[in-house]
Amino acid sequence: MLIAMADPTFVFGRVSRVADERVRSDEDRVAVEEPLEIRLGRTPVAVTMRTPGHDRELAVGFLSTEGIISGLDDLAETAGPSRKLPNVVSVRLRRGLRFSRSRLVRHFYTNSSCGLCGKTTLRALQVKTRPIASDLKVSPSLLYSLPEKLREEQETFDETGGLHAAAVFDARGHLLILREDVGRHNAVDKVIGAALLQGTFPLERHILIVSGRASFEIVQKALVARVPLVAAVSAPSSLAVALAREFKMTLVGFLRGQNCNLYAGSERVTTGETR
Amino acid sequence: MLIAMADPTFVFGRVSRVADERVRSDEDRVAVEEPLEIRLGRTPVAVTMRTPGHDRELAVGFLSTEGIISGLDDLAETAGPSRKLPNVVSVRLRRGLRFSRSRLVRHFYTNSSCGLCGKTTLRALQVKTRPIASDLKVSPSLLYSLPEKLREEQETFDETGGLHAAAVFDARGHLLILREDVGRHNAVDKVIGAALLQGTFPLERHILIVSGRASFEIVQKALVARVPLVAAVSAPSSLAVALAREFKMTLVGFLRGQNCNLYAGSERVTTGETR
Repeated sequence: MLIAMADPTFVFGRVSRVADERVRSDEDRVAVEEPLEIRLGRTPVAVTMRTPGHDRELAVGFLSTEGIISGLDDLAETAGPSRKLPNVVSVRLRRGLRFSRSRLVRHFYTNSSCGLCGKTTLRALQVKTRPIASDLKVSPSLLYSLPEKLREEQETFDETGGLHAAAVFDARGHLLILREDVGRHNAVDKVIGAALLQGTFPLERHILIVSGRASFEIVQKALVARVPLVAAVSAPSSLAVALAREFKMTLVGFLRGQNCNLYAGSERVTTGETR
Repeated sequence: MLIAMADPTFVFGRVSRVADERVRSDEDRVAVEEPLEIRLGRTPVAVTMRTPGHDRELAVGFLSTEGIISGLDDLAETAGPSRKLPNVVSVRLRRGLRFSRSRLVRHFYTNSSCGLCGKTTLRALQVKTRPIASDLKVSPSLLYSLPEKLREEQETFDETGGLHAAAVFDARGHLLILREDVGRHNAVDKVIGAALLQGTFPLERHILIVSGRASFEIVQKALVARVPLVAAVSAPSSLAVALAREFKMTLVGFLRGQNCNLYAGSERVTTGETR
């Protein structure tokens, strides 16, 4: 696939390639990682290390999966990034929408790919969210077709090996939105932000697929967006499985070739066999 | 490798394995992910989603790579986790050591695998840290031997596919410390915390290897621990490369088989050829 030279997702640089004991200087492409500051009005509320591009979607998706906005109606305006401030997006909420700053600060009390942050059990989440009731059904063959479609559309991975991908598919397996980022959680926020800005939100009859592992954070973001089925190319974590089971989500792992594992909500996958 | 049943790094659970259109119920092992709350005295300062085990090392490593402690002398006591509080570690700093709570809060102003958090340029870091001056030299063949040694010692990955690994090697390629975690940044903090608690700190003549990609955060943690050479099995990000070059660190990527790429500080790799 042809890559535009102005693509902000990677940069060229010199690299020394070593093979056995030989070394040669070469040009290389590296995935771009830069900080993005997300502001509510003029107040910085988060900095995330991301790959530039789709920054408003990232900001909106982040505010959504953090529970600060619940839909397009909660947004008054999004601005940036600009030439002067290439790593800042500012969001104005609708008048009257209040958000708890102390909750947000508590939420960010972490260094990690978290998403839980200060709530130490699933119970804390349960208070605010109801289980997923979507009647989505998919066949194994539909699931098997998704990673290939993801890879076909992935622009940067083959060039740098450095980006995660996340994508939303409809119930018939059509790819709707794909985003890439050095941070898997950012790729998911970009996809969810794009869906929200396009008016395809919540994602109640959709499939979210991630290129790597499924952590608690990924499943939690999908839950907020009301996604009934999350599929990962690699392994899930124990808390990702627990969260999916608790909220009646379907969690698919190790989706490779003609194989996958169903960790939760297997009734949405129509194998025609009893389980 | 035999895994003790009481190993806290994975749990057993039921899974539906789907192959083609067939499904069978099976037992599966999943990597454990649970929140760890790190306290300074009684004050929670961070929650990170981690794989239980080596939690004190994780807490101490975290406080080190966040710049809150600079060595073993700064610690008065570490306590926990306990049966009653399995996900809490409390650290008491030495008398007289002050830490800036506002800096820490600002630092945690992020949802992501960050490490930058509020400092928006490398310049902000530069003020507080000097370049690495280590005269460490390694041969390509020594580098090539490291991933295999990592895998041989990795206990859980083959069982679950869900854990990242980080390890410290000495200048002769002997593995000193290896830790695994669902979060790569946690695996690195555990390794650095272990080194600090063992008195092998700073790591001025050592090699840090990570099983996946090298982000800014990983290189930044290595820099704080004064590691001269960071090697990743997969790709680095642009900011990881920039940080390594700025601080005279050696950054190796795509370390696989008899190949690797040198992104920064190639003079520490003795290929016997000019570059």
